[in-house]
Amino acid sequence: MSSDATKAENRRMILAARPQGMVDASTVRLETGPVPEPGPGQALVKVQWLSIDPTIRTWMDDRPGYLPPIALGEVVRGAVLGQVTASNSDAYAPGDMVVGMAGWQDWTLAGEGAHGMQVIPPGLEPGAVLNVFGVNGLTAYWGMLDVGRVQSGDIVVVSGAAGATGSLVGQIAKIKGAAKVVGLAGTPEKCAWITDELGFDAAIDYRTEDVAKALRRHCPQGIDLYFDNVGGEILDICLAQLALRGRIVLCGAISAYNATERPAGPSNVFNLIIKRGRMEGFLVLDYMDRAATAQLELAGWMAEGKIKHREHVVQGLEHAPDALNVLFTGENIGKVIVEV
Amino acid sequence: MSSDATKAENRRMILAARPQGMVDASTVRLETGPVPEPGPGQALVKVQWLSIDPTIRTWMDDRPGYLPPIALGEVVRGAVLGQVTASNSDAYAPGDMVVGMAGWQDWTLAGEGAHGMQVIPPGLEPGAVLNVFGVNGLTAYWGMLDVGRVQSGDIVVVSGAAGATGSLVGQIAKIKGAAKVVGLAGTPEKCAWITDELGFDAAIDYRTEDVAKALRRHCPQGIDLYFDNVGGEILDICLAQLALRGRIVLCGAISAYNATERPAGPSNVFNLIIKRGRMEGFLVLDYMDRAATAQLELAGWMAEGKIKHREHVVQGLEHAPDALNVLFTGENIGKVIVEV
Repeated sequence: MSSDATKAENRRMILAARPQGMVDASTVRLETGPVPEPGPGQALVKVQWLSIDPTIRTWMDDRPGYLPPIALGEVVRGAVLGQVTASNSDAYAPGDMVVGMAGWQDWTLAGEGAHGMQVIPPGLEPGAVLNVFGVNGLTAYWGMLDVGRVQSGDIVVVSGAAGATGSLVGQIAKIKGAAKVVGLAGTPEKCAWITDELGFDAAIDYRTEDVAKALRRHCPQGIDLYFDNVGGEILDICLAQLALRGRIVLCGAISAYNATERPAGPSNVFNLIIKRGRMEGFLVLDYMDRAATAQLELAGWMAEGKIKHREHVVQGLEHAPDALNVLFTGENIGKVIVEV
Repeated sequence: MSSDATKAENRRMILAARPQGMVDASTVRLETGPVPEPGPGQALVKVQWLSIDPTIRTWMDDRPGYLPPIALGEVVRGAVLGQVTASNSDAYAPGDMVVGMAGWQDWTLAGEGAHGMQVIPPGLEPGAVLNVFGVNGLTAYWGMLDVGRVQSGDIVVVSGAAGATGSLVGQIAKIKGAAKVVGLAGTPEKCAWITDELGFDAAIDYRTEDVAKALRRHCPQGIDLYFDNVGGEILDICLAQLALRGRIVLCGAISAYNATERPAGPSNVFNLIIKRGRMEGFLVLDYMDRAATAQLELAGWMAEGKIKHREHVVQGLEHAPDALNVLFTGENIGKVIVEV
């Protein structure tokens, strides 16, 4: 055990109440306890960075989902990047950087009977690890290639385009030969970032522009591929403007994650018949056995300067709930991460 | 020219006004005119049977669709079965039975510059031609095999199950090894027909039963494949009860065809993400180049007694509008056809 660990305490962010709407002061409480002791086959990990993702908000609700809800009294679930400080396991050595679903706390155990955490190559910056090589990169990559089957010449639209996943989706579409990539984002600064820095062909500020009209202007022949991060009205508009044999990749629906009432459904679903369209949902969890394939190609594109990424850093474990809210108020550009 | 044709007049059912809701007396007017004269390369066809399909109602609206709306003043569009009475074309001989989109009238021309009508083998009964070997059989066949990719062991649900397409869908699912086929229909008589005669495993009377509850009872593990003929609330219920990697084939949405207000969309679309589900629309028009493949296999199944069909016959060209309404009031069991 390092002296660092033995002296420290473990702060844990516990789900205290199910949120109604946005997460607030009553949702999560900070508890302090002893740093866990690694048993045989286990390593002790100092959590350094938290990956803040919209899906965490869905786990806070007591509703059936693709993973069980976070139980009241449990540490808030989430991906983290940390460093091994002590190890009784052949799989981990002190100094190793590791990623896994250890949640919002200072310290965690990895290995047998604890979290299965993956050792990552040294020298990578936290943003690249949690964003491009993390769930966002894998989601964007497999969502576009396997679910959306992006093709050369496609007219592509992506919502949440200045977010972590959306910004990668648009760049991958361009790499794969899309004829036009249009991003929807919520501020002039975000719109400028995706067009000027990331190479999107156009951006629509959905907070100030008439989205239906702007999409008709940018995509007069209709939308071949819409990558949906938001659901709600924008999904409905894109359904109405689908091109023949258009595809809609359902990745997320952040417009509804804080809804306190059941949201209305898209009224233009019938257009899927007229346009022989396909709407398909997916979860990146199903692609974890193919993560390396995506990560290798993404690393190549990064090295070539074809993929750029940006992080919105929030300081302090205790501010993780605020960091989660940032995803829904839209203050972030790029990936939200917490430096613990 | 046969003496029959020269003496007769041609009654034509003309779209007089765009319906608001159900078709009524003001929607279609009967006009009488001369029987057309076949020119060079043309044949004269006596229309004997009309295929009455829900999609005809959608063509009566002035809305963008997969075909242009029927113009006011035009004969109502629809598939027909007729017999050649005179011919100036090598492609047609008097006595030939032909099918094509000649619409609601007594006489039509086939051939160069007129309707492209297809000669069908002699000896087939009108019901088999317009139902099993017509759009309904092709829709059911390609919808299940190509779009829905029905697999052995699937739990299949079909709405409009006592209609022409739905009744074929369920039988094809059983032939292809579905573990269970549940049909939704609107009367006890229809429910009895699909289970007792057609071999569906279960039927739900959607007018008297709690559909969500009944589906949970019949499909406790969820729905692998839902073939949707109706849209609306039933589509939403099936979205909510989709099994992992479930598929929804969007074929029609008859619950909305007579709607005077924009219908609500399905609020459970997000479940496509949780369940990695796929919802896909299609049109049988796109499968016309593969019609023979389906027709051959369907003929084989009919000969083996594995496919049964039933027609609801309405007498008289002038009653074609009533026949169309029957599809929406649900008085029919099986295919609605008009004997001209």
